Amino acid sequence: MRFLSGTSSDGVREQLFTLDGIPGVLWTPDGGGAATRPLVLLGHGGGRHKKDPEVSALAHRLVTACGYAAVCVDVPAHGDRPQVEEYARLAVENQARVEAGEELAPLIAEFQARVARRTVPEWRAVLDAVQELGHVGPGPVGYWGVSLGCGLGVPFVAAEPRVRAAVLGLGGAHASADAAARITVPVQFLVQWDDERVPREQSLALFDALASKEKTLHAGPGGHGELPAFELDSAVSFFSRHLGPG
Amino acid sequence: MRFLSGTSSDGVREQLFTLDGIPGVLWTPDGGGAATRPLVLLGHGGGRHKKDPEVSALAHRLVTACGYAAVCVDVPAHGDRPQVEEYARLAVENQARVEAGEELAPLIAEFQARVARRTVPEWRAVLDAVQELGHVGPGPVGYWGVSLGCGLGVPFVAAEPRVRAAVLGLGGAHASADAAARITVPVQFLVQWDDERVPREQSLALFDALASKEKTLHAGPGGHGELPAFELDSAVSFFSRHLGPG
Repeated sequence: MRFLSGTSSDGVREQLFTLDGIPGVLWTPDGGGAATRPLVLLGHGGGRHKKDPEVSALAHRLVTACGYAAVCVDVPAHGDRPQVEEYARLAVENQARVEAGEELAPLIAEFQARVARRTVPEWRAVLDAVQELGHVGPGPVGYWGVSLGCGLGVPFVAAEPRVRAAVLGLGGAHASADAAARITVPVQFLVQWDDERVPREQSLALFDALASKEKTLHAGPGGHGELPAFELDSAVSFFSRHLGPG
Repeated sequence: MRFLSGTSSDGVREQLFTLDGIPGVLWTPDGGGAATRPLVLLGHGGGRHKKDPEVSALAHRLVTACGYAAVCVDVPAHGDRPQVEEYARLAVENQARVEAGEELAPLIAEFQARVARRTVPEWRAVLDAVQELGHVGPGPVGYWGVSLGCGLGVPFVAAEPRVRAAVLGLGGAHASADAAARITVPVQFLVQWDDERVPREQSLALFDALASKEKTLHAGPGGHGELPAFELDSAVSFFSRHLGPG
């Protein structure tokens, strides 16, 4: 893990890093010395990147309100990472299949499952590296990700026992119901009632598939990109309840 | 309005009162002098009363966490109020109709609509009286009520312009969809996914019927009586966001 830069503002230290060619950003309390603290891994959305405004805003809140660490890395073919020929080819093929009348949602899900085969081991390596840092340490871990961050997050949370609580959503059951059935940690699951990309019954099917004893669906009006800002506050409360003090 | 008793503990002053024969309880910050503060009216569940543990716990949180006032009164034929012959007769009739194979949910809804014709004017009178008190004053008003508190709350919130935000739930659209369509304030709406008294599609239909631009469904596993305790925290955050500082 190699740090590229570090800046501080409003009580938050932000460090850019690379780990085996994966660019990432780590947020921690400014001036926070050696201390074990909860860590939340954030998964960004499709076509976005590690410093997406929503991701960055949530990271800042987790640091300032809870004293947590937060980390986000670019998904392959996103942000500062090179294009992936296989994904580019698939995107073109899928476009053609949708134009020929195929349903969009299963194609998105299949694509995300393919990307997850890379991101699950990558994200586990990110946890390993970040938890070795003196100002983070081996505390409890949370995961937050919607849309692409849900498609990649479901198999990640299912595979990674360090994750104790997760916020997921804006995703459907097409590809990830099997992985969802292996998730038992508390989940807050976000649905946009008028999501034009994920059919409502697919969202509810993914929520139903989660094996978690504690799981709460948060649903409201609006399209895929219109998640209300107060759901970030709600995520902070949720993590605070499950990951403990920072 | 006549006060019967007043006690204080853990920073909360609790005053029992009657207003035109309606027994109620008012919670305010202990030692809180003359000050205008937000007020939340709490509607208790069926077969319960104004000092139900859930109602009382939420009232204490609103007072201690937000500096708000909270009030709850016994619904007719509940708590310290006399039985109502008409309701008792209907209960017996409904029991017989259910045993004869009729659906329970529409009968409950019809019963609640009948009770609401009394409680809507009663609760408006309670707001009038409580807001004249020096330690409450004419601040913004919220409403919280699930189950019977939703069946009575929907017509109340629709009728009462002082209410700026409401938590409702564990109720269906049978009787109250028309009133719900007149509600435009922000609503947090609670659904128990395995509710044995309110069919899921009836809950979702009531949520859909609300005309509120901001409305959020919170749904989780469990039966009618198993609302998770963290939904009280969530209600406190919701009121705090919409009613402002206490």
